[in-house]
Amino acid sequence: MPEFPPLQNDLILRTARGEATERTPVWMMRQAGRYLPEYQAVRAEHSFFEVVGTPELAATVTLQPIDRFPLDAAIIFSDILVVPQALGLEVEMVSGKGPHFPDPIASPDDLDRLVTPDVDDALGHVFAALTRTRHDLDGRVPLIGFAGAPWTLMAYMIEGGGSKTYNAARKWLYAHPDAARRLLQTITDVVVDYLIGQVEAGAQLLQVFDSWAGLLGPQMFRKFLFPFLEQIADRVKDACPEVPLIVFAKGAHHALDSLADTAYDVISLDWTMDPQAASLLVGDRAVLQGNLDPCALYADPDAIDREVQHMLAGFGPQRHIANLGHGMHPTHDPEHARAFIDAVHRHSEQMRAV
Amino acid sequence: MPEFPPLQNDLILRTARGEATERTPVWMMRQAGRYLPEYQAVRAEHSFFEVVGTPELAATVTLQPIDRFPLDAAIIFSDILVVPQALGLEVEMVSGKGPHFPDPIASPDDLDRLVTPDVDDALGHVFAALTRTRHDLDGRVPLIGFAGAPWTLMAYMIEGGGSKTYNAARKWLYAHPDAARRLLQTITDVVVDYLIGQVEAGAQLLQVFDSWAGLLGPQMFRKFLFPFLEQIADRVKDACPEVPLIVFAKGAHHALDSLADTAYDVISLDWTMDPQAASLLVGDRAVLQGNLDPCALYADPDAIDREVQHMLAGFGPQRHIANLGHGMHPTHDPEHARAFIDAVHRHSEQMRAV
Repeated sequence: MPEFPPLQNDLILRTARGEATERTPVWMMRQAGRYLPEYQAVRAEHSFFEVVGTPELAATVTLQPIDRFPLDAAIIFSDILVVPQALGLEVEMVSGKGPHFPDPIASPDDLDRLVTPDVDDALGHVFAALTRTRHDLDGRVPLIGFAGAPWTLMAYMIEGGGSKTYNAARKWLYAHPDAARRLLQTITDVVVDYLIGQVEAGAQLLQVFDSWAGLLGPQMFRKFLFPFLEQIADRVKDACPEVPLIVFAKGAHHALDSLADTAYDVISLDWTMDPQAASLLVGDRAVLQGNLDPCALYADPDAIDREVQHMLAGFGPQRHIANLGHGMHPTHDPEHARAFIDAVHRHSEQMRAV
Repeated sequence: MPEFPPLQNDLILRTARGEATERTPVWMMRQAGRYLPEYQAVRAEHSFFEVVGTPELAATVTLQPIDRFPLDAAIIFSDILVVPQALGLEVEMVSGKGPHFPDPIASPDDLDRLVTPDVDDALGHVFAALTRTRHDLDGRVPLIGFAGAPWTLMAYMIEGGGSKTYNAARKWLYAHPDAARRLLQTITDVVVDYLIGQVEAGAQLLQVFDSWAGLLGPQMFRKFLFPFLEQIADRVKDACPEVPLIVFAKGAHHALDSLADTAYDVISLDWTMDPQAASLLVGDRAVLQGNLDPCALYADPDAIDREVQHMLAGFGPQRHIANLGHGMHPTHDPEHARAFIDAVHRHSEQMRAV
């Protein structure tokens, strides 16, 4: 493993490990992105996947929110769809529309088209970006690596892009359950190697994004999502026991109790979950992350302050990483992001002073 | 009120009122629709809103699934967006894309564009369709009327069409809370008159569809959805105490407990809710409806049978109206819908025989 500058702010790592801390750490999903003019400036010159694929550009963009705001973590600028790319599928990012697979997986026969990648070859650009970013961060805050969860990646690979309901992918779980399991295992194997490789390249915390978990009911979650999410945590923990793992099963409100019993250290909650109810249910089995409604950042800064105070009161002062319940929007005002971050600093310190 | 043929099958009405019954009633959301070739035949000749606006066509299409399957209720063929139309907004149905508002509500100033409709004038075509359908049904099963909930209609009116996240509408709740409440009250007033008018025209059961309730967290639900949903139930019950009311707050998993304490007789659940947990929580405060994953209908009929059995066991034999957790898909096989309905008949009778 390369030598990196010493870490100056380990607040999020200590919180993720369940230690009592002096303040609630804070970062924002999609904190590097289109709401920042300095990001737009980079994107004016380079395509989305050019930024993802060029370590220097990825590092630049990753550091932009860190230079601007007092955040407690950086998250590598990348995309969950690099794994389907590594599996041999073409993915384009269509401006204003999102990802598009020109040739998605249409039937179980198409699984033969997937390749078994050499992760260092196929995803080496992300590893290089992580190493470069970790150096450029100069120890200011920890660096988060991430991957998409098997179901969410499967949903994109079958649907061929974004969708409201991912019916084509959900159909597989009922019509082709064995092929679905085979595909989920193929993705899982790559995700495990990919996450371990990210740690070797410099990631200090890992998040697994199951963005479409909420499209399934409890029974399908138990059959097709949970076993693979659990497998990822177990295998990555075996290889990297010291690296905290975060799972974000967006919308899977019914899954909180079972996720709390896995090797994930942190469960990230979307904004439809009640912080207090979640804290009571999970107890000391996991640390919680989240979960302000991203749309709350459209309110004026005073209202944002009240929303944050309410959220922090729900989670309590300890065992909580402040975040949004989903990613930043392109139309957010950066100064409202600052209001969110400042409110977390101020109120979480006050809560401890009481 | 017009004279109608005597009702021969009141199973769903008795169940909705909480009475013990000899079998679990069953219907399917969007049971009249594109998965039926006989519906496609009508649509080959007439546009969507032409069918909605022509009582004879609406009645024909409403009866198609009743003629085909042993269902326990018909639901009038219409659309929740007739209310925004009555409020003065233009709505087009774009083939393959869904509804489109050429000129949506962009800012609070646009609220002045909304008209206060005479409901009999603006929505008389739906009333006429209900009366015609009730006659054509000849008492075979009860006829369900429906309306969109204020938040869901507001979301369409601001967003101008379907959306994954309805950010523009959700932004209003934070950025323009007073204007949002004004708009919600305007919609509520029309919805109340509209639902009462539907009963006068022949509807025997009413469902309120809050399709986008799940996009909001518990706090926003309490502030902006619950008061208007409650108001609708109270005002409609005042006028029509004998008509059972169903509420479907799709995705609002956190709202089940509070909805159970309203005047709604039945709470419809989406497929992400666990039937047994929901039954335990609600107890005898409301009857439950739902909630098979519509994607389960892509499984083979034997698997559908097992899924139905599992669902029925979760809800228990009484105080349950079997349905899907959301509407039928255009790509469903009608024979799989039949497998679902038959399985409800068979297993729910067997459960009572035990």
